[in-house]
Formats: sequence, structure tokens, C-alpha cells
Amino acid sequence: MLAPTPADKFSFGLWTVGWRGRDPFGDATRPELDAVEAVHRLAELGAYGLTFHDDDLFAFDASAAERERRLEALRKALAETGLTVPMVTTNLFTHPVFKDGGLTSNDREVRRFALRKVLRNVELAAEVGARTYVLWGGREGAEYDSAKDVRAALDRYRESLNLLTEFVRDRGYDLRFAIEPKPNEPRGDILLPTVGHALAFITTLEHAELVGVNPEVGHEQMAGLNFAHGIAQALWQGKLFHIDLNGQRGVKYDQDLVFGHGDLMNAFSLVDLLEHGGPDGGPAYDGPRHFDYKPSRTEDLTGVWDSAAANMRTYLLLKERARAFRADPEVRAALSAAGVDDLRAPTLDAGEGYADLLADPRAADFDPDRAGERGYGFVRLNQLALEHLLGAR
Amino acid sequence: MLAPTPADKFSFGLWTVGWRGRDPFGDATRPELDAVEAVHRLAELGAYGLTFHDDDLFAFDASAAERERRLEALRKALAETGLTVPMVTTNLFTHPVFKDGGLTSNDREVRRFALRKVLRNVELAAEVGARTYVLWGGREGAEYDSAKDVRAALDRYRESLNLLTEFVRDRGYDLRFAIEPKPNEPRGDILLPTVGHALAFITTLEHAELVGVNPEVGHEQMAGLNFAHGIAQALWQGKLFHIDLNGQRGVKYDQDLVFGHGDLMNAFSLVDLLEHGGPDGGPAYDGPRHFDYKPSRTEDLTGVWDSAAANMRTYLLLKERARAFRADPEVRAALSAAGVDDLRAPTLDAGEGYADLLADPRAADFDPDRAGERGYGFVRLNQLALEHLLGAR
Amino acid sequence: MLAPTPADKFSFGLWTVGWRGRDPFGDATRPELDAVEAVHRLAELGAYGLTFHDDDLFAFDASAAERERRLEALRKALAETGLTVPMVTTNLFTHPVFKDGGLTSNDREVRRFALRKVLRNVELAAEVGARTYVLWGGREGAEYDSAKDVRAALDRYRESLNLLTEFVRDRGYDLRFAIEPKPNEPRGDILLPTVGHALAFITTLEHAELVGVNPEVGHEQMAGLNFAHGIAQALWQGKLFHIDLNGQRGVKYDQDLVFGHGDLMNAFSLVDLLEHGGPDGGPAYDGPRHFDYKPSRTEDLTGVWDSAAANMRTYLLLKERARAFRADPEVRAALSAAGVDDLRAPTLDAGEGYADLLADPRAADFDPDRAGERGYGFVRLNQLALEHLLGAR
Amino acid sequence: MLAPTPADKFSFGLWTVGWRGRDPFGDATRPELDAVEAVHRLAELGAYGLTFHDDDLFAFDASAAERERRLEALRKALAETGLTVPMVTTNLFTHPVFKDGGLTSNDREVRRFALRKVLRNVELAAEVGARTYVLWGGREGAEYDSAKDVRAALDRYRESLNLLTEFVRDRGYDLRFAIEPKPNEPRGDILLPTVGHALAFITTLEHAELVGVNPEVGHEQMAGLNFAHGIAQALWQGKLFHIDLNGQRGVKYDQDLVFGHGDLMNAFSLVDLLEHGGPDGGPAYDGPRHFDYKPSRTEDLTGVWDSAAANMRTYLLLKERARAFRADPEVRAALSAAGVDDLRAPTLDAGEGYADLLADPRAADFDPDRAGERGYGFVRLNQLALEHLLGAR
Repeated sequence: MLAPTPADKFSFGLWTVGWRGRDPFGDATRPELDAVEAVHRLAELGAYGLTFHDDDLFAFDASAAERERRLEALRKALAETGLTVPMVTTNLFTHPVFKDGGLTSNDREVRRFALRKVLRNVELAAEVGARTYVLWGGREGAEYDSAKDVRAALDRYRESLNLLTEFVRDRGYDLRFAIEPKPNEPRGDILLPTVGHALAFITTLEHAELVGVNPEVGHEQMAGLNFAHGIAQALWQGKLFHIDLNGQRGVKYDQDLVFGHGDLMNAFSLVDLLEHGGPDGGPAYDGPRHFDYKPSRTEDLTGVWDSAAANMRTYLLLKERARAFRADPEVRAALSAAGVDDLRAPTLDAGEGYADLLADPRAADFDPDRAGERGYGFVRLNQLALEHLLGAR
Repeated sequence: MLAPTPADKFSFGLWTVGWRGRDPFGDATRPELDAVEAVHRLAELGAYGLTFHDDDLFAFDASAAERERRLEALRKALAETGLTVPMVTTNLFTHPVFKDGGLTSNDREVRRFALRKVLRNVELAAEVGARTYVLWGGREGAEYDSAKDVRAALDRYRESLNLLTEFVRDRGYDLRFAIEPKPNEPRGDILLPTVGHALAFITTLEHAELVGVNPEVGHEQMAGLNFAHGIAQALWQGKLFHIDLNGQRGVKYDQDLVFGHGDLMNAFSLVDLLEHGGPDGGPAYDGPRHFDYKPSRTEDLTGVWDSAAANMRTYLLLKERARAFRADPEVRAALSAAGVDDLRAPTLDAGEGYADLLADPRAADFDPDRAGERGYGFVRLNQLALEHLLGAR
Repeated sequence: MLAPTPADKFSFGLWTVGWRGRDPFGDATRPELDAVEAVHRLAELGAYGLTFHDDDLFAFDASAAERERRLEALRKALAETGLTVPMVTTNLFTHPVFKDGGLTSNDREVRRFALRKVLRNVELAAEVGARTYVLWGGREGAEYDSAKDVRAALDRYRESLNLLTEFVRDRGYDLRFAIEPKPNEPRGDILLPTVGHALAFITTLEHAELVGVNPEVGHEQMAGLNFAHGIAQALWQGKLFHIDLNGQRGVKYDQDLVFGHGDLMNAFSLVDLLEHGGPDGGPAYDGPRHFDYKPSRTEDLTGVWDSAAANMRTYLLLKERARAFRADPEVRAALSAAGVDDLRAPTLDAGEGYADLLADPRAADFDPDRAGERGYGFVRLNQLALEHLLGAR
Repeated sequence: MLAPTPADKFSFGLWTVGWRGRDPFGDATRPELDAVEAVHRLAELGAYGLTFHDDDLFAFDASAAERERRLEALRKALAETGLTVPMVTTNLFTHPVFKDGGLTSNDREVRRFALRKVLRNVELAAEVGARTYVLWGGREGAEYDSAKDVRAALDRYRESLNLLTEFVRDRGYDLRFAIEPKPNEPRGDILLPTVGHALAFITTLEHAELVGVNPEVGHEQMAGLNFAHGIAQALWQGKLFHIDLNGQRGVKYDQDLVFGHGDLMNAFSLVDLLEHGGPDGGPAYDGPRHFDYKPSRTEDLTGVWDSAAANMRTYLLLKERARAFRADPEVRAALSAAGVDDLRAPTLDAGEGYADLLADPRAADFDPDRAGERGYGFVRLNQLALEHLLGAR
């Protein structure tokens, strides 16, 4: 029952299984992976989608003919396998021209070039049927505080997003944008470093309804933040347009491990939220479960496909565990004892205002010392979660 | 010239100089500090404002008479010294009743109690002339993912804020709210962990115009975030209603050191932004420069007042250094060479749309390889900043 | 089969179940716990040992009579339950006199007082049959670089340890010392911040054979270090004299959660190492499995005992999972394919020297490019571990 | 007076100024830098030494003739400029063959190959007159706990070091080894992650006297550790054989910024320790002041040389500030009041043993409550340091 199927909506970046293992201190350890092969292998493994940056598919300076040739091969592979392209994104970080950023580079000509690159790639995204367009501004940032006027950078970022939403509206594309936050690496400090900063920025846009977030497990955890909490706020603000699943072991460089191969308890909470956080206990999110990870540099191609499969299997295992957790009567009792449900009840009675609250005759009966003695049973609840996670109940 | 005066708008929490040195592993090392004495000493040192939590001034369960007695003594001291109370806040974290939070406790009766406590203290704040009401939700959070429904907690937090803004509007108070984010401690994960998350949350409120943020240096740095960047975004969104200055040495427990006794370069950037980030190079922020720090537990009362003075002196030193930095022609040239000013220019020409951008005939002339060779001179610019900071230019 | 028994050697600090919930921002939420009750409850739960600081048992300034009274009650409870006292430690951090440290305070009289306090408590430790004496130097450190001469502090720390080992040797006590490292909190930087620093320091002592380490899960993880790796080095250097088990969720304040309620994968690796890292796959460590955790402040006494039980149950679950992992033929094959066993083979042949190595005729056959193509299968191996951890194999 | 001269012993890695800007998300932004040009430029700037990895000078698979050709060009440039080669190191991390490590790879043939590579390069180091041989084991580690037997890895590392020390002894080389610790990146967890772990490991070697450490500012700070404290312990253990100076802004990826462009206060403390921590206030370390940094990717060649100069100028500025700090009578008084000197006095009187200490008649006079009231004045002392750092006194 844990074999992934397209109904699970698992998708992978072409740059993930295609990562060659080049890191800051080492050369590539694996040969190039052909996009067509990737499509076939991912389809065989049970994935439903492939995603890519423009430059994953064709070289930065590829001719129109070369681009079309590559694209045609991809289309054919997609048709053969039924795989979809739910998301596309632009590479605004590899080429030296983007060394101070793309849409917020200190060089206006670079900004104009970057914007054209995105516009052209949005056309491509629409053409291949993508519904989400991710913007990871990995180079939009600085190492030195005086070197970047952050408010000007936000102005330029907003200007760009407004242009892009106008573009998709005018073209009638069924496409939404998703900003992917990251605190640092490869820049010392990146603009919009967390889910929160991105959500705040989005509210300032002309067509905010077309822009959401694409949070990545490791990126929030690099700032020591609770990923499931960030996803909860994104859902609460109606902005979880896409998600990047992977693994990270604490506050350090961006590890991009297999999903679950990091903070396993938080991965469990996340899957529980995504799959059971919706109305009536159903899914809270219905988009792709997108893996943005890197098969470790120590792996050969067998290891690449093993790692791709591991992402999906771990997700399904956690989903199964979360289902059992939610179904367990002891858990339900513990949740209730802990007041978790109580928090869903408004603090005020229906129609009650501050005057009523202040005048509430029951207020005099409330004894804070006694109320402070309540045991919430949170540790026991967490232990129940842990034991379900371990398959021990 | 570095003697602080009320015109510098330096303010201190009563709980800062009044901190007795009790920490998780140690008992208090200093006697209680009387609020009246604090007012006199701070005034002598050149501060202009004192701030407090309700429970700093009177005991949690003080009688009305006792509250009035304490308040009257404070009023008298303020009148004698000219010190103001620019900000007031509520303690929703010390008493056991708040162990699972105040406004977002899993216990509805606790939430109602907390809301009443805030409402009563808002009245007091208005009465003493405060213009800002800070909400630090230090207990609004969780240690365990299953123990708190984050979306329900955000609902309750919003419900509370909506009630509070309605209250101040109805009462005609000239008072705005400022949310103070913090990632963790004393809870494992705190709701609205960064400036970004708080800014995003605020946009969902009924009277968002009355709610801003009160970022604290150390709180953002506990998540490894660049404080000056966070302040820039808060300013950009028009939401820097108040600020907490202190020092933190990296990602660890909340240190609350003297301002500057942490990341000194970032403190310099911050002061530069606050004092020179406004129109025509003037201040970008005109509210209190509020120190929320703790005199180290190793200090006696002499050390307490020395440390209070150190906060102000460091701020003034950095302000002086930032002024010289901005005035230095070499710096101006370096900023220009680095394209810092260029980023303020819109990426699009006036009236230009995406079609024009894509059709721009100059686009063909843009050679990304060549543009990628540009040297931005950021390191030199940073070195100029460092040398100004060191008083070496 | 997962009910703990004394044979499992689980021990608890009296200060753990006895923690009243006072934290830097909040007052105590639980009543005092009597040591006698703690002994009985822990024995009922299946623990075998209780540990304590002097000041856990009697007040800092208790009279000799009071000390004896308390001690006698403890002895009686131990006799009734069969519980042992495998470890004792000194409180050199709570009282204000230790605000700049105990054995390395800048005040010589404080150092002398601290040393006397330890000596007297060592006598007590020997008297109650403890075999390990832990030294946690939580206050031995500084917030400010100029305020502490680290080399002088190390001199003083060495002087103290040398005196203490001389003392136990002369007295003929069967007692060894274990230094507990911690990077920070409550001091900004603590002396001997990691297992490594402590191991290095120990080698400089007169009776180094009597001094080892007592690493704590959360303390190493507060520095982002891999706890299982640190334990491996401590074992390798023959210095794992004691261990403190708990949970920590990343680089932040010291959380002291239940064991496993933090980095669960690393907890699994740790138990695997302790239980299967010895000769022939047996235990690598035979001392107490000591839980140094804090029942969350949100818990009442029921929650305290639930949390105590949770520590032991999680350990036993992980032990069971680790056993199955080691027994799985697929895991053995994966370990072998990954070369994990190969690393145990010396790099040099028996009797081979550098000249032989350089002259090795097979060297010419070694093709680094080809050798670089090897796939180690580490991701698959980790996935096998994860699936065993989840009870999914 | 702040122009660097060879007497200042500033040295640079060839890989630093020669770094081409390739990072995990971006291609090279600068052309290759010829070693001969580097020698001339560094000499002009006032450096005294150049250091290198074998593979910085010639390709991994260079022929003997090619190696000699490159070496000869270097020798000539050194002779022309007077620059020295104080340190040499081996690259055991770039080539795919080292993807699981060199001296501790799970593949024995790789370990043998790595050892031969080091041996040959040690010969070269001796030949060019280097006195220190650095070993940075950047690939000696793991991402997954089960994939590496840490104790076996330490065995292999020790085996290698023992062979290397035997080699230099037999050959009569005047060369010592220095291990460079790093907690992570490019591996998830690196063996010997901190100065402490390396110091502890060294004590287990056959010729421990020939092996010390080469701590790097950013590496320790990536674990949130106080670099000056780590250096102090290394000095205390007589093991500071070499030092890598650079800048890091907190717990994140390895930034390799210019020295001082990170934690400036700690850089000041470090320089103060190195320059004034020796007997009679003289230098505590007389080896090279080696900069191991990366000119940011945004810089062109002008920026490269500006950044090289910035490292040296910052060091000299801090040295000047530290001198003034030490000379200031107010600082001396504050140090004395803070008890900093007192800590250098043994805790025991000459000849005093534990019995005397316990029987000390003055003990009864010691009132811990009163002693706990002492104010150490640490904040004021730190403020004095800060003001000297800012050139404000």
C-alpha cells in the first residue's frame, strides 16, 4: 500500500535527481542526467510531476532551435509517461551576471535582463501547462549591510512582481506565483528570509491574490524555525501555493537531504498538517508534494533513484502514521485534555464586546492561582505522537 | 557632545534596570529597585522615557488602593523629572496561569482573563500618556507540535487584536499597538517568530493601521537573521512603531546585553538606517530608542547604572560614526560605484510595460558575460564602513 | 517487554522530576517534590538510580542536623526501594556567590569556598555509594571577552581537579569524576564548551585516569554538533564515564525535553551506539542511562511522572528498533556495500611503512577517476535506518 | 604606521586570492589567477608568506614535468619578492575520489591513495621550506549516522598521523602538523568538529609533540563558539601551531569573509590575545597571521586585491586599538576591580592541601551572601573595550 502513485501528487525538480554533486569544495561526481531519462525513471517510480528551471532544460545561451529541440523531447517523454509539469521556475543565480541578484541587482541593466528572462520563461511555463511559477531569489541579497538598500530592493522586487502578475492576467494564463524564502546561502543575507517576510511582502502587491509562497523545509530550519508552524501560518493566510519537501539537520549550510532525513518529528507534524489539517480532517493542501532535495554526492545513479524513491516512501509512511495517530481514541482524549480543541472556540461569546467581557460576572470567580495548577498533558500527547511515529502503538 | 539628552528619545523598561538577576540556573543577585528611584536615576543619566509592564509597577494581585498608591508615586516622580512614559505593556507570562499562553492559551478562561488584564492595562497606558502599547507574546507558543493548533492560535490572536483596536478607537485613545516577535524562549516555538511573520499577521486585522511591530535586536538574531534588514522591511511596510535595542552574541539563549555588546557591525548599520535612512538623509524613525536589555547578573547597582549609560553612549557613538560615514566623499563614491543608488531607480522606464521591455531594441546589446565581469566593490565599501566604525578615518 | 527494570540502569536527577517550572520569564508552576516521594515513584516506574546536587537535598545553608535528617530520610527510602545513588554532583551555580563561577570565579575567596563545598559533597557522595561525581561548570565562563582570562581559568580548573583526585585517592574512594560540557547558558560562553574541549583538558590533569566526561544530548546540540559523534569520540578516548539523556530541538536555549523528543534520528543512532557499539555487538557503555531533563512547565505532577516514564519507554523502544536494525540481513549488506566495515581495516598492511606504501606496485593501477565513480549507497542505508526506526520493516 | 610589512607575518592562501567565485549555486565569476602574479601582488601589499594546496599549484593529475615547471616559476617569484612559504597543505576534498573522505574514506584504496598524496606533498612542503603542514579534513565525515563508524575513522586518522610524523622525523624535516577543525560543510558532520575535539585527538598520537591545531575563525563560529576562547585553550595546551583568520556572520554556511567583517568584538579580543597575551604583555603567538578568506563573488580583480589589503589593515587597526586598551590606566583599574588578575593567583596557598583548605580558620568568616553582593563591573569593562575598539577613547 506504500507504493506511490500519481494520485499522491509527488513531483521532483529536474535539478534534484539531475544534481551532479558539485559543491563548494568539490567537483561533480556524477554524469549529466538527460531530462528524458529523468521523466521515464520518475514515472516508473510513481511520481506524477517534473519541474525545472529554464537552464536545467537548455543551456543559458541556447539558440531558439536548441531550446525547441530539447522542449520537444521533453513533451514527447511527458506524453509517453503521463507525467505533468506542475511548476516551472527561472534560474537567476548561476550565471555571473546575477552575482548581485536578478530582479534586485544593483545594476539596472541586469534587472531588465532578469525580468526578460523570467517573462520568457513564464510563457514557456504556461505552454507546458504549469500552474505554479516559483521565484527563488537566492541571489537577491547581500553580504554587507551598506551594499544593499533593502527598501529599494523591496521596491524593485514589488515592481517585478506587479509586472509579472499583469503579464499572466493579460495573457490569460492559469498560473500563480510562489515566492520561496531562504535566510542565507549563497548570499550572506537573502531578501525575504522566511515564510513570514514573504507573506508580509506579498500583501503589498497589486495582484496579491496571484502570489503565494513555496516554503522549503530546510530553508526555514536553517533559521531554527519550526517548519510546520510556518506552513500553518501560510495556510492560515491562504498562501500555501506550493511546497518544497526535503531534510535538514539543524542550523547549518543548506543540506537538501531526503525528506524525513532531518527533523523527523517535525516531518511527521508537517505531513499530519498537510493530510489532516483540512476541514473534517481531510487534506489542508491539495497541490504537488514537491521534493527539492539533492542525492548526496557520495551516490552513483543507483543511489540517485534510491533516494528519489526514499522521499516518496517516507512521505507515505508518515502519512500512514499520521492517520493512525488521528484515529487513536487515546490520542483524541489527550488532545481534548490538552485543550487543543478548546483553542478553536472564540474567546468571546457570540456578540460579546469588550464591555461585556470586562463586566462578566463570572470573572470574579476565576482564580488565576488555581487555574495555573492545570496540567495540560502536553508531554504525554507528544509521547503518543512519538510512539505512533515509531509504529509502536 | 555624547551626553544623552531627552531629545535623543532614549527610554528604558523598568524591568531592565530593575532586573534582579534571576536566571534559569540562579537566584536573584540584586535587591528590588524602586520605580521612583529608577525614574530619578534614568532622568539624571539623560533618558527621556520609562516603560513598564503592569506587574513591574504593582504585584499581580495588588489591590486597587495599592495600584493607585504606586501609580501616584510614579506620577510624582515623572512630574519631578520630566520623564515620560512612551510605552506600556502587559505581563502575560510570569504567573503560572499563563503557562500555555495568554491570548492563545488552550484554556478559554485563561484567554478571557488575559484579555481583561490587557484591557485594564490599556486604560492605564492611556492614562499615563503612552502612545505605544507593546504585545510580547512570549508564552504564545508550544514545545510540541501536536499540542497547539497554530491556525486556531492565530485566529484567537486576531480576535484579541481586533477587540483591542476597537477598544482604543471607541475610547478615543491616541495609542497604537506594536507586536514584538521572538522565535523561541521561554517556549520552544513562539507564535509570530520573526518581524516578517508579525508583519504578515497584522495585514489580516480589522484595524491593521493601528498595529505595527516592536522588533528587538536579539530576538531576530536568535534566528540568525540580519536585524537591520528586518527593520528595513518593517519601515518599508510602514510598521516600525517601536524598537527594542540590545545586544546578542549569536544564535543562543536570549542574552539581552547592552546595545552594541553583540554584533557591532550590524548595530552600526542599524543606527545608520534609523538616523540616516529617511528622506534627505534624515531619520527614518522618530519614535523612542528603547533599550530592552538586562544588566548582567554579575553587576551590583553601580553596574546597573553604568550599563544603562553604556547603552546610550554606544548609540550616540554609532550615530556619530554613521554621520561621518555618510559624509565621507570616498564613501559616496564607493556607494555609487557599487550601484547602491542605482537600485532606487525603477527597473522599467516611465510608462514601460512588459511588451516594451521584451521588445527593447537595446536588449540585444546586453552581453551577460560581459556584464558578469563587473566588480561591485562591496568589500571595499564594507571596509570603509568598518574603518568609520573604528574611528579610523 | 518494554517495561523498564533496574537492569536497564535508568537513573534520574532529583532536580529533574523535582523541577518546579521556574524559568527566566516565569514563576514556579508546581509544588516542591519531596525526595522521599521521588525515590518511591521512580522505583515504581522501574528506575534503578537517583542522583542529586547537594542543594537538591538540603538548603544551601542547612545546619548539620538538618542535613543529617534529610539524608537519613533518603537512606531509608533507598533501602525500602532498592534504588541506588550512582552519581552525585555539586551546585556551584544557584547562589549569587557563584555568579562569576565557582572553581574559576575571579574572586579567590569564592574559589576557596567552592572547593570546600565540593570536597564536603564528595565525602557525602562516597558515603551514599556514588561511583561518579559530575562537575557541571555552568557558571565557569563569561559574557565578555575581557572579563575572563581563559588560560588562568583553565589553570584554576586544573588546580581544583588535581586537588579533588588527590582527595579521592587518599581517601580510597571508589569514585571517578565526570566533567559535563555545555557551550553557553547561563553564561554567554562557558569554559570547556564541548565534549572535545573537556576531553582535551582532562589530558592535562595529574590523575587523568580518574576524570572523564558526562556529555548531555542537548548541550552538544546547542552547538549544532552531532551528539552520537561526540559520544563515539568520548568512548574512543575511554572517557565516557556517565551520560545525560534528554531532548533538544536545535540551536537555541537549553530545552531539557524528554529523551527522543528532539532529534529522533540521532537519538536512535546514540542508543544503537551505546547498546551495540561494543565488542561483538554488545553494549559500548555499561554505566547509568541518566535522564537529565525537565518536565515541561505546563505539566502538573501527573505530567511529571508521565514524562519520567516517557524517557525510559522511548529509550527501550529505540533499543528494540536498533536491535532489529542490526539483525536485518539487508542492513548488513548495505553496511558492507557502504564500506562501513572496511574502515575498521588498517590502511596499511601489517608491518607496512611509508616507504612500502609509496613503493606499492599496485598504486599505479589505482585510477582515481574510476574510484571516484563508486556509489556508497549511504542514502539507502539511512533510509533503512529510518524505516527500522519507524517500525516499518 | 598601518602599512603591513613582512615583520607582521601576514600570509595568504593561494586559493584565497585565487578563488574564482564558484559556489554551490553559481559559476565562476573571475578568471584564473596565476601563482606568480599572486606572489608579486601579495609582496607589494606587504605580505610575507604564500601558502597552498598541492592542487592549487598544479592540476590533480599533472605530470612530473608540469609540476616541476610550475614549481620552478613559483620558486623564482619567491626569490624575486622575498615572499616565503610558511605552510603547505593537501587537497583531499575536490576530486570525486575523496567524496567519502581521504584518510578516513570507507574505501581502503582511497585511504592509501590519500596517504600517498599527502606524503608526496609533505616532501614538497619541506623542499619549499614550509614549517607547518595543515590537515583540513573537510571530507572526513558523514551525512548519515550509520554510514560512518566514527571510532574506526579516528583509528584511521590516528594511523595516518602516526605515519606522517614518523615520516618527517625520519627525514629530518623541520615541519610540524596542524589539524584544522570544522564542524560541517561540505559534509553534514565533520570528524574533529572543533578545536577541542582536535586537541583531544592529538593527545592520543605517537608523536603528539609534532601535531597541533590550525583553528579558523569562521569554523568555530559556525558552531556558535567563542573563537578567542578556543584559541586561549589551544595556547594553554601549547598547540597553537598556525591560525586561519577570516570573518563569519553567525551560525550559517562557511562565509570566509575578510578578517573583522564578522564578529568585530571577538576579532578585537583575538588580536588582543595574540598580541598581548604572552609573557609581559607581548605576543602569545609568533607564527604567521594567515588569512583564509574568499574575496566575495561580486568582486573583480581590483576587489580581490582590495580585500587582501583589507584583511591586513583590519588586523593592524585592531592591534593598535588593543595596544591602547592595554595601556589605558582606567582599563587596568577596571580589570583589577573585575578580579581578572586575581584569577591568575592559585586558589590554594603555597603548599596547602585539601586538609588545610577544609580546616582553614578563615573559612568561618566567609559570608557567601555578602560575597554574592560583589559587583564585578564586567559591563563597564566591556564598554571600555568597545570604546577603545571604536577609537573613542
